[in-house]
Amino acid sequence: MTMDKAYDVVIIGGGPAGLTAGLYATRAGLKTLLIEKGVIGGQIANAELVENYPGFPDGISGFELGQLMHQQAMRYGLETIGAEVVALEPGGKTRLVRTSDGEYVARAVIIAGGSELSKLGIPREERLTGKGVSYCATCDGPLFKDKTVAVVGGGDAAITEALVLAKLCSKIFVIHRRNQLRASRILQERAFAEPRIEFIWDTVVDEIIGDERLEALKTRNVKTGEVSTLNVSAVFIYIGFSPNTGYLKGLVPLDSAGLVITNERMETTTPGIFACGDIRHNSAKQAITAAGDGATAAMATERFVREQG
Amino acid sequence: MTMDKAYDVVIIGGGPAGLTAGLYATRAGLKTLLIEKGVIGGQIANAELVENYPGFPDGISGFELGQLMHQQAMRYGLETIGAEVVALEPGGKTRLVRTSDGEYVARAVIIAGGSELSKLGIPREERLTGKGVSYCATCDGPLFKDKTVAVVGGGDAAITEALVLAKLCSKIFVIHRRNQLRASRILQERAFAEPRIEFIWDTVVDEIIGDERLEALKTRNVKTGEVSTLNVSAVFIYIGFSPNTGYLKGLVPLDSAGLVITNERMETTTPGIFACGDIRHNSAKQAITAAGDGATAAMATERFVREQG
Repeated sequence: MTMDKAYDVVIIGGGPAGLTAGLYATRAGLKTLLIEKGVIGGQIANAELVENYPGFPDGISGFELGQLMHQQAMRYGLETIGAEVVALEPGGKTRLVRTSDGEYVARAVIIAGGSELSKLGIPREERLTGKGVSYCATCDGPLFKDKTVAVVGGGDAAITEALVLAKLCSKIFVIHRRNQLRASRILQERAFAEPRIEFIWDTVVDEIIGDERLEALKTRNVKTGEVSTLNVSAVFIYIGFSPNTGYLKGLVPLDSAGLVITNERMETTTPGIFACGDIRHNSAKQAITAAGDGATAAMATERFVREQG
Repeated sequence: MTMDKAYDVVIIGGGPAGLTAGLYATRAGLKTLLIEKGVIGGQIANAELVENYPGFPDGISGFELGQLMHQQAMRYGLETIGAEVVALEPGGKTRLVRTSDGEYVARAVIIAGGSELSKLGIPREERLTGKGVSYCATCDGPLFKDKTVAVVGGGDAAITEALVLAKLCSKIFVIHRRNQLRASRILQERAFAEPRIEFIWDTVVDEIIGDERLEALKTRNVKTGEVSTLNVSAVFIYIGFSPNTGYLKGLVPLDSAGLVITNERMETTTPGIFACGDIRHNSAKQAITAAGDGATAAMATERFVREQG
């Protein structure tokens, strides 16, 4: 029989949101445990060069940024374990966090598990990520100024990012597997009015071509079966995302995409449960906004723990 | 006659919020001007060591952090001038920004002018700021773990920060010039219940004592005239703050303290005018949350400018 380990705060997820929450919670004198199932840094750990986190004019590797944030929080006493959270049980005074590596009792829980963008699952997608394959136009768009690029997807995220790219790139092909968009009407109207954006309908990407960098996409029309090669400098993939919030169903309010709904203090409607970063509904999905969210969540948590006495 | 200079975005204020907004706006391809009346970095430029901005485990001087953020935004084309904004005129398609150094036309304006905490205005206050004199318990509290400290003030901010310090410091004297608090009832109850907090009523601080570091406070009871010396390691001053929003009256909604009211996308109710950072109502008043706000404001601004066509 293992004893429960008791903390003031358990943070689920070790990306910029969770790490900043850990920094602020420990500095506020709270006994804090951070649980990360993968790599410290979360999604950003995969970014070859982060150019838009303020304070690093030459950019910084995402892996290194995650490590620096982690070191900083550990200086104030943050404890960290590598485990996956399988269940969360709210309670009166405390909450129980069940993980793949034991159970933990916490007075408050900060959910910062991030949200993974869906992959196409095709050859070279993973290897050329950061080398022409991107999941963030706001982050990587400026690298492809005045170049021809492609966007894959037809929802709000895909069309929003295509419009962002239209301010920077000379030509944007939007590749969508259907013959109409899922995106909201206003976004569709703007995209159709933008001369730099050209739609390629009923088409999927079968393969990414390139050795050191992405050079072209092999596409296929799903109605005619016609196969083509599209020369682009980058592809931005927005075919949906999957926040890891299955274990939160019925526990905190989720939106239709499974993201956690909070107020601007990062409080959910369930006492003692907070959420921040990309896993949060309305998140701007940037490292710097996630970090800001994390600080806000920790400050709200500190108030909650103090009020509970 | 000088010609108006036209920009997509004018940002008022060069602290972490304004600088991050500048980074994001320029990276989105917007022609952007930042106007700062004082030192780049804003309030943070005065901080000897910033320990709670994620990414710098050993801390970083506030001045250096401001410079790094500025360099980063300039790499993407941010223009900067030193001037004071004296008036802002909203319009249909554009807004006019009148400054001490000319007029500028902008499609959108981001207000990021910060909020200055009021000073006591007594000997050695300025010289020992960062050396025992502080205006931020969340930032500097951990430096005084298990020490005796003082808080000056009786409003929500003073009592909130005293409660934050009660988790870290062994003893907190709250010095207030009246015999009752202005703080909300719930905060008062918590402070009265906290054994580490002791109130010194009807008392003002006349002088800060110490050469290299703060060593004690010279206090005076305003009713009896009695003068005392209080040995403390630090004093945290919360006697109000004065956001520079006089020129915004009638233009955007302000709260009773003069802070700008926005929604969570940093939009005011006036089209084309956004606000972020400490000048915003409900700001967490931290460098990292201000930076996050700045990114969010720039993303909303980018959408606004794009929609206006």
